[in-house]
Amino acid sequence: MYQLIELIAVVSSAIYGVLLARRHGMDLVGVFSLAFMVAFGGGTLRDLFLDRNPLFWIANDHYAVIVFVLAIVTSLIPMLPEKTERWLNLPDAIGLGFFSIAGALAAVEAGTSLFIASMLGVVTGTFGGVIADVICNRVPSLFRPAPLYATCSFLGCWLMFLLNASSLPEAYAVPIAIAGIVLLRLAADRWD
Amino acid sequence: MYQLIELIAVVSSAIYGVLLARRHGMDLVGVFSLAFMVAFGGGTLRDLFLDRNPLFWIANDHYAVIVFVLAIVTSLIPMLPEKTERWLNLPDAIGLGFFSIAGALAAVEAGTSLFIASMLGVVTGTFGGVIADVICNRVPSLFRPAPLYATCSFLGCWLMFLLNASSLPEAYAVPIAIAGIVLLRLAADRWD
Amino acid sequence: MYQLIELIAVVSSAIYGVLLARRHGMDLVGVFSLAFMVAFGGGTLRDLFLDRNPLFWIANDHYAVIVFVLAIVTSLIPMLPEKTERWLNLPDAIGLGFFSIAGALAAVEAGTSLFIASMLGVVTGTFGGVIADVICNRVPSLFRPAPLYATCSFLGCWLMFLLNASSLPEAYAVPIAIAGIVLLRLAADRWD
Repeated sequence: MYQLIELIAVVSSAIYGVLLARRHGMDLVGVFSLAFMVAFGGGTLRDLFLDRNPLFWIANDHYAVIVFVLAIVTSLIPMLPEKTERWLNLPDAIGLGFFSIAGALAAVEAGTSLFIASMLGVVTGTFGGVIADVICNRVPSLFRPAPLYATCSFLGCWLMFLLNASSLPEAYAVPIAIAGIVLLRLAADRWD
Repeated sequence: MYQLIELIAVVSSAIYGVLLARRHGMDLVGVFSLAFMVAFGGGTLRDLFLDRNPLFWIANDHYAVIVFVLAIVTSLIPMLPEKTERWLNLPDAIGLGFFSIAGALAAVEAGTSLFIASMLGVVTGTFGGVIADVICNRVPSLFRPAPLYATCSFLGCWLMFLLNASSLPEAYAVPIAIAGIVLLRLAADRWD
Repeated sequence: MYQLIELIAVVSSAIYGVLLARRHGMDLVGVFSLAFMVAFGGGTLRDLFLDRNPLFWIANDHYAVIVFVLAIVTSLIPMLPEKTERWLNLPDAIGLGFFSIAGALAAVEAGTSLFIASMLGVVTGTFGGVIADVICNRVPSLFRPAPLYATCSFLGCWLMFLLNASSLPEAYAVPIAIAGIVLLRLAADRWD
């Protein structure tokens, strides 16, 4: 199941990175570089912090090929800016949900405390977007009052810990926590 | 003694991060995130560079709880901006001094040359502030002619090496070097 | 041979960093810090990603001394801004070529797939410049349509893999690939 979570997280984050890069008028190299950073940034930091080796995108080297193909395919499609603006939120929220839980699960497995695990969930879920913001030279949205990426991620991790503690099997707790993060994030966008 | 140095460094850096975030009008999530990065950024880079494992804030998981509580407590206090401006310098200088020496000591212990150790002292002491600057979208103050963080840190590390070489016990050399960095940094602020 | 490649890469990247910092009017500390980051940034990321230990600039601690001396020497020379603008491109292109191939070779040696190795070549070759751009608060030039650092690096890595696959000995394939990247990069600058 862990592999599937990571794959979905990578694919949706890559799509988000590609759309974001296209909106900023980047060329193919920029599109691929940004997609690569958004898709692999958070997980790389998690793997470095937990000393997991090799890094998840070196161990699963088809991930990079997937991102590469995604960047090429979407570069062939002429972009419709008014539409993508709205569509950016969906892959962003999905990537946040799946990466947050992937980060928290990996940290728990490595034996950290639950509080540290939830922080690594937040780092894994949000760092790709923070890099994208720094690259695009904006104040990272994590630090502006509006859409609370870190809060959604943090609450979702604790929802999973609580469900686990109440002896719900992981096969249920994990999808519920992921869905919680994605829905909370989309709701925050809507009510902003 | 090493544990105590690190604890003081974390607490004062976290206070600096919290005050800086408050001054930029961030919400609780932003305050905690910035405090976390300022308090753990430099030491994390040191641990990654020296392959120390687990990272110091994963091994000492009460550090994160301390930062979390600090962020919440200070969020309840209404801020007095004119006063904090001056108070920002003190925790900043203390964090610089304690983290610089903590970085240099860890590097020496890992068997690096003294020159590399002093560079790791500078990295450990200054990186938190550099991240804060990049996040707040300013040219990092390390790179502007004015207040020389890196110089204070570098000189303090070499002061410690010299005192050690002149066979002064570490129990004296370390506090003297830390005090040297803090005072030099505060003096640089005053005469700027 | 690998040592020589790395040494040339470090020296030319450090010269680039020094010139760039001088052009931005930084003092000696800023000059050394930027030179250090440009010269060691890409290789550090490669070593962290591949879990190579100790880091190449900790293992070869004369590198840091070389960068330090370079920063001091060039600080004594009064700068002629109109001339350096053109001269910036040469050490930049040389650093890109040597670091890209050093990154790809290290990745292949660590047993990654060729696609991952070429990506690590790009990361090693370009990351120093990306840091410099972020520090100087510009949109990293990697992400603007103009001079394609990442493309030159990526093509050069694949040139080396192809030459190797066609059973050309590494002693020929490596210099050809490096020369290819440097020339491609200089040509891109000229025709921009």
